[in-house]
Amino acid sequence: MTTLFRHDRQAALAQFQAVRSHTLDLVAGLSPEDMTVQSMPDASPLKWHVGHTTWFFETFLLDAVSTAHSFAPAAYGVLFNSYYQTIGPQWARAARGHLSRPNVAEVLAWRQAVDASVAGLILSAGDAAWAKLAPILEIGLNHEQQHQELICTDLRHALSLNPLEPAAYPLPQGPWPTAAAQPLRFDRHDGGVVSIGAEGKGFAFDNEGPRHRTFLQPHALANRLVTNGEFLGFITDGGYQAPALWLAEGWERLQAEGLVHPLYWRCRDGAWFEHTLYGTLALDPHAPVNGLSAFEAAAYAVWAGARLPTEGEWERGARQSAAPVVAAPLLHPVGAAQAEDDPSALFGQVWQWTQSAYAPYPGFTAPAGALGEYNGKFMINQLVLRGSSCATPAGHSRATYRNFFPAHARWQFAGLRLAKDV
Amino acid sequence: MTTLFRHDRQAALAQFQAVRSHTLDLVAGLSPEDMTVQSMPDASPLKWHVGHTTWFFETFLLDAVSTAHSFAPAAYGVLFNSYYQTIGPQWARAARGHLSRPNVAEVLAWRQAVDASVAGLILSAGDAAWAKLAPILEIGLNHEQQHQELICTDLRHALSLNPLEPAAYPLPQGPWPTAAAQPLRFDRHDGGVVSIGAEGKGFAFDNEGPRHRTFLQPHALANRLVTNGEFLGFITDGGYQAPALWLAEGWERLQAEGLVHPLYWRCRDGAWFEHTLYGTLALDPHAPVNGLSAFEAAAYAVWAGARLPTEGEWERGARQSAAPVVAAPLLHPVGAAQAEDDPSALFGQVWQWTQSAYAPYPGFTAPAGALGEYNGKFMINQLVLRGSSCATPAGHSRATYRNFFPAHARWQFAGLRLAKDV
Amino acid sequence: MTTLFRHDRQAALAQFQAVRSHTLDLVAGLSPEDMTVQSMPDASPLKWHVGHTTWFFETFLLDAVSTAHSFAPAAYGVLFNSYYQTIGPQWARAARGHLSRPNVAEVLAWRQAVDASVAGLILSAGDAAWAKLAPILEIGLNHEQQHQELICTDLRHALSLNPLEPAAYPLPQGPWPTAAAQPLRFDRHDGGVVSIGAEGKGFAFDNEGPRHRTFLQPHALANRLVTNGEFLGFITDGGYQAPALWLAEGWERLQAEGLVHPLYWRCRDGAWFEHTLYGTLALDPHAPVNGLSAFEAAAYAVWAGARLPTEGEWERGARQSAAPVVAAPLLHPVGAAQAEDDPSALFGQVWQWTQSAYAPYPGFTAPAGALGEYNGKFMINQLVLRGSSCATPAGHSRATYRNFFPAHARWQFAGLRLAKDV
Amino acid sequence: MTTLFRHDRQAALAQFQAVRSHTLDLVAGLSPEDMTVQSMPDASPLKWHVGHTTWFFETFLLDAVSTAHSFAPAAYGVLFNSYYQTIGPQWARAARGHLSRPNVAEVLAWRQAVDASVAGLILSAGDAAWAKLAPILEIGLNHEQQHQELICTDLRHALSLNPLEPAAYPLPQGPWPTAAAQPLRFDRHDGGVVSIGAEGKGFAFDNEGPRHRTFLQPHALANRLVTNGEFLGFITDGGYQAPALWLAEGWERLQAEGLVHPLYWRCRDGAWFEHTLYGTLALDPHAPVNGLSAFEAAAYAVWAGARLPTEGEWERGARQSAAPVVAAPLLHPVGAAQAEDDPSALFGQVWQWTQSAYAPYPGFTAPAGALGEYNGKFMINQLVLRGSSCATPAGHSRATYRNFFPAHARWQFAGLRLAKDV
Repeated sequence: MTTLFRHDRQAALAQFQAVRSHTLDLVAGLSPEDMTVQSMPDASPLKWHVGHTTWFFETFLLDAVSTAHSFAPAAYGVLFNSYYQTIGPQWARAARGHLSRPNVAEVLAWRQAVDASVAGLILSAGDAAWAKLAPILEIGLNHEQQHQELICTDLRHALSLNPLEPAAYPLPQGPWPTAAAQPLRFDRHDGGVVSIGAEGKGFAFDNEGPRHRTFLQPHALANRLVTNGEFLGFITDGGYQAPALWLAEGWERLQAEGLVHPLYWRCRDGAWFEHTLYGTLALDPHAPVNGLSAFEAAAYAVWAGARLPTEGEWERGARQSAAPVVAAPLLHPVGAAQAEDDPSALFGQVWQWTQSAYAPYPGFTAPAGALGEYNGKFMINQLVLRGSSCATPAGHSRATYRNFFPAHARWQFAGLRLAKDV
Repeated sequence: MTTLFRHDRQAALAQFQAVRSHTLDLVAGLSPEDMTVQSMPDASPLKWHVGHTTWFFETFLLDAVSTAHSFAPAAYGVLFNSYYQTIGPQWARAARGHLSRPNVAEVLAWRQAVDASVAGLILSAGDAAWAKLAPILEIGLNHEQQHQELICTDLRHALSLNPLEPAAYPLPQGPWPTAAAQPLRFDRHDGGVVSIGAEGKGFAFDNEGPRHRTFLQPHALANRLVTNGEFLGFITDGGYQAPALWLAEGWERLQAEGLVHPLYWRCRDGAWFEHTLYGTLALDPHAPVNGLSAFEAAAYAVWAGARLPTEGEWERGARQSAAPVVAAPLLHPVGAAQAEDDPSALFGQVWQWTQSAYAPYPGFTAPAGALGEYNGKFMINQLVLRGSSCATPAGHSRATYRNFFPAHARWQFAGLRLAKDV
Repeated sequence: MTTLFRHDRQAALAQFQAVRSHTLDLVAGLSPEDMTVQSMPDASPLKWHVGHTTWFFETFLLDAVSTAHSFAPAAYGVLFNSYYQTIGPQWARAARGHLSRPNVAEVLAWRQAVDASVAGLILSAGDAAWAKLAPILEIGLNHEQQHQELICTDLRHALSLNPLEPAAYPLPQGPWPTAAAQPLRFDRHDGGVVSIGAEGKGFAFDNEGPRHRTFLQPHALANRLVTNGEFLGFITDGGYQAPALWLAEGWERLQAEGLVHPLYWRCRDGAWFEHTLYGTLALDPHAPVNGLSAFEAAAYAVWAGARLPTEGEWERGARQSAAPVVAAPLLHPVGAAQAEDDPSALFGQVWQWTQSAYAPYPGFTAPAGALGEYNGKFMINQLVLRGSSCATPAGHSRATYRNFFPAHARWQFAGLRLAKDV
Repeated sequence: MTTLFRHDRQAALAQFQAVRSHTLDLVAGLSPEDMTVQSMPDASPLKWHVGHTTWFFETFLLDAVSTAHSFAPAAYGVLFNSYYQTIGPQWARAARGHLSRPNVAEVLAWRQAVDASVAGLILSAGDAAWAKLAPILEIGLNHEQQHQELICTDLRHALSLNPLEPAAYPLPQGPWPTAAAQPLRFDRHDGGVVSIGAEGKGFAFDNEGPRHRTFLQPHALANRLVTNGEFLGFITDGGYQAPALWLAEGWERLQAEGLVHPLYWRCRDGAWFEHTLYGTLALDPHAPVNGLSAFEAAAYAVWAGARLPTEGEWERGARQSAAPVVAAPLLHPVGAAQAEDDPSALFGQVWQWTQSAYAPYPGFTAPAGALGEYNGKFMINQLVLRGSSCATPAGHSRATYRNFFPAHARWQFAGLRLAKDV
């Protein structure tokens, strides 16, 4: 894509406009109230996401050419800086929901002004300048796609805790796509030295490289994701009451927070439901389970006589099939995706917790400058998730992609795929 | 007023409509975002205030007649119940800002439906029913006026911490009303047995009675409020660095939070400003200081060789003059109010911290039923404030009024009037 | 006593030695471990009490004459300063239990050296110097007596939470002194202006004065304290489950901490026990209830159709009888004390929560200098307790004494005496 | 060693007595106060360590034969259970310092009784029983050696925060062993598939196996540890003020806690000192730096143009030299150890942070039963440290040993050895 960007300005502009539009599509039907609340420190108000992605283009693209423009009050530079120490101070993350201003309309107007300026720059920059700007544009678009997923997950979280159980989006017409998952099967691999990591052909984040050799043990990978129905078996078998299944920190959290089921599940009169972006729906036993912490995922795996895969095992397995580039049909994982023996089902439903700590690949060095803060400085106390989810935008998933969250994070579209020693 | 209500339905309706309209006036120019944020656990989102006052009429007035109506989803009963255990469970106060739904428009529509129903009830209730309902209507209107003041103070807090320093309301036309305060003078009283508390003629909250005798020591009361300019003298004299001036808990909080001036003051390049509902303005040295905790007020008094008055001293002094019933011209205390030797200046500018703990008057008993939770159960670890502020609605101030907040609360329009032993 | 001290040096020395010895008696049988632990931030290690009272004499008495001596490392000045900002910095209260050094033996050796020096000073000081020192000595001895009571209560707390349920002291020989309490009776008083506060004859803390007039309403006071058996009635009637009985903050704490009985009570197989300094004993239904917060005391009073007395009512009632100066026979309240119609039973069993906030008496001003920090700066967010307890040393109780704790404090020998409006 | 144990009961008994004696040697000169305090939740009172190791033998060895004995009150089973859910409930870790009972003497008496019983069992058990018991004895001894190191580090922490700056042990006679470290050199390795992990010959903890193949990238390892002098260069170059050097979580903690140097360093009048178990001494620039978190170690490495090694790189490098089995001469890292080009210097001075998350080796499964809780359940949010420290007992260090702590832990004898990509 970088190559494309560099040589085809129209294509670059089209891609820019497409990605930027998709963000607006996600929030089009939402009220200012929906876009203002912050339901926990880990989540952000939606209008913050809309503003932060705008700040990203203004700061890293427009300011790189000239800082003479003035699209917004200076304070925006503090309010919408997420964590770039090199750029300057940041508004406290946990207090993003304390801000009523700028309001949504002001954020959107700022966004429009920045977009127009970026569009102009794409078409008018000299070739030498463009050679430097094109990669920044590309990272900015990929960055925005990450926030598109966060818009979905943060919105779901905020609506899920509301006793009104609101839907973010109207329930789609037609039957909900469900079907029994194919039988669980473990596909064996003999292990040995394999290469993983981005090959440098298309776009990849810095943390996906360098491509390097690693040694896999003989192992087997499940052919599909764990379903809601299977996870219900863990619950009814007392999984949340059996400390021997859990990592110590997971057990402590479970007890302190009184956890007895995945984050978005609800049990009423013996029947199970799940809060989704479309409202509270009956739990589909065939759909991949989601809303799990790594602690829940790992406890399930122990209970099932298996384990979480390493990210090397996962990537080796995924490499055999092409990653999908189309968006999921729904903003919720569905049972139908697991019905066929289709490796692409590893993408587009739920992120899959691995047992691999999020650490630098051998030879990794963060890029110089502020963008070097993008990934490397978070490589501690987090686990890698692989695949992609129903909320991942089209074109944003690939086999080398390394998503990461703390083990206790529960509000993502995150589930698991089992692995085994053989 | 109760008598009026009971005998003149049209007057009751007019009063109901006037009070309810004033709430809407206060939020008329605000965005949904301004009405959704909660900037600290002690404050509430403005739309919550708008909804809670509606819930109050629905719960205590309409439900008292019939619960067959349905103006809102059942969950509203939880979301908008502030603290009435007798009524049922409450949404956690600190999480009121986590809710995007109901949105402002939905709250307003609910409000409109309830208002129509209340209006109908006022005009149509049988006389026997009305005799019971009129006092509830009256307490509901006074309750709403309290929330009107909180709308102003909570809004000011939320905007004050925003680096954009937004104004809630446009700056009024014409010159800002300032003038040098009259010279400070202490008016002596010989003490002895006096009676304080509501006499039962007009409306009063339960905590204002029973009227009872109390013994005052000889003392003197300042003829006016402490000004910004005087408080600046305390600051420049090192008042915030002198532990001997402070109550121990106040000193601990001062150090833990790094306090060096009143909550809304800002010092830039040696000049002092204050964040107001009209934006950040130059500090008026003649205006009464506000935004103080009781700790700051008491430390100032010690520094000034004086003390805070008791509520008995304050009320005895105030009784000599009539309380104003008109609203302050601005939603900010102004210097002009202190320029004349006018006892009514004790009202309508800033609440005045007393040294009196908020405790039941002799013979106080909380009313039976849920409304008995209104005042009595908060009579611990709070101090009484007397007078009224620029944000107190017209008709809501009187000499017997007992406002109360924890000693550390800083976000109210609260200042002080000095007293002395003689 | 001050007069005595000033004119009879031998009497002063004897009193000094008697008080200092009593502290050592209290800890004589305890291990270094018992004297080192701190079981909560509000409590202190016993060796800290032993050291702090020594620091008090060294700092306020010996240093007032000469600072040339050196009884201890300079760091002791920080470690054993409780809260005197005028003297210098203080070791964090909550971290007193983090210190193993000085160990108990070192603290005792320091104590011995200071005691010898104080004894020498008492006998050798010139008359002019002695006139200044005698009042300091006297306050030092009263200060030490306060810490003697805290030694008992802090020790009880630390042992009570230990699953081994240890006894601090061996169970006394002979039968436990119990007997049915006399019937509950309310003694009426017509109210009016009365004088309360210390008259300046014997020793009194600064907070007990000035003596002043106050107005009492007509009221009635219970003739005895509430017993364990009566409090059990409150429990079995659902008192801990009825929010209408509780102040709001009390109810919140009750729910957050899961309270269902007084701090030291234990229920096993349906039978009630109480942890005491003599170990866990069967609960005596006739003994005064203790280990209550003011919230529990006030909730009981509401349940009983009564209220807590004001401190004025309490003192007026107590004035009619002489305060005992002898120590209680046991370090635990006993039923026998309530069996006779004996006003002295209001002392020496349990402190009695009043509804009066701990505030300065009219005309109170803190003394100049560091000792001015003794009482005045704590006059916020606390309630007054009156009487004295089984752990109050002989000679340390009087009708004007104002003990004070935050309303939520539960670990003192604190109970209640009922009052009523009439 | 296991083999030895199984066939030579006298050798087993001697080893048991030697290890148990060493614990007593470490606390021999300490007071009950030193053994009672808990200076932070991560540390434990020394008497708890002494008791917990006794509990371990009683629970896992004696109870495995018969539970008919009774060496201690039943509550000891709760008080001294660290984290074995399978065994039963545990006293809260953060409250271990709240307990004065059992006192030190009682713990030691219990220890003596258990030791006698274990000694008898070693000599008298039938061969079949012994075959099962010998491995438990061995793990118990290794377990105790781990707590011997914790006794040193927890004691150092508790004494270090005391303003008296006490020494735990008398300063050894003779000159302090210092000498300039050899020049820093990076030894290259070509990488490739290597095997790491315990080979199953001598004793190893479960987490050291299974031995397995892993792939190393070409890299180079420093020939020695980073010294205090070198770390001082990082400080004076502004290392603690440069966010670009730090992992994000490390930078947040640094700012929240105001960190500017390693935990035990002190700067006075421009000179640097270090609190040690022998008191506060001048900082030796030649000695290996210790008292670092992984955040500090990693930031130093970035500043030095290097990185932390992986545990595979470390173990491959260590395999080329024999691990020492003798104890360090001092309970503090010394400069002399770095003066020669001696690979054994990687042991016995300071643990070395690696960049490797503490994760299960391929094929790892926790043993069945309560001892399966020993290691596996902590494999999240911790980093591996390799080598051993001056406080590691003789015979307890080996090349495959995996120590682990959270990245923010600072109170261990932990420093670093640099690595580089080549």
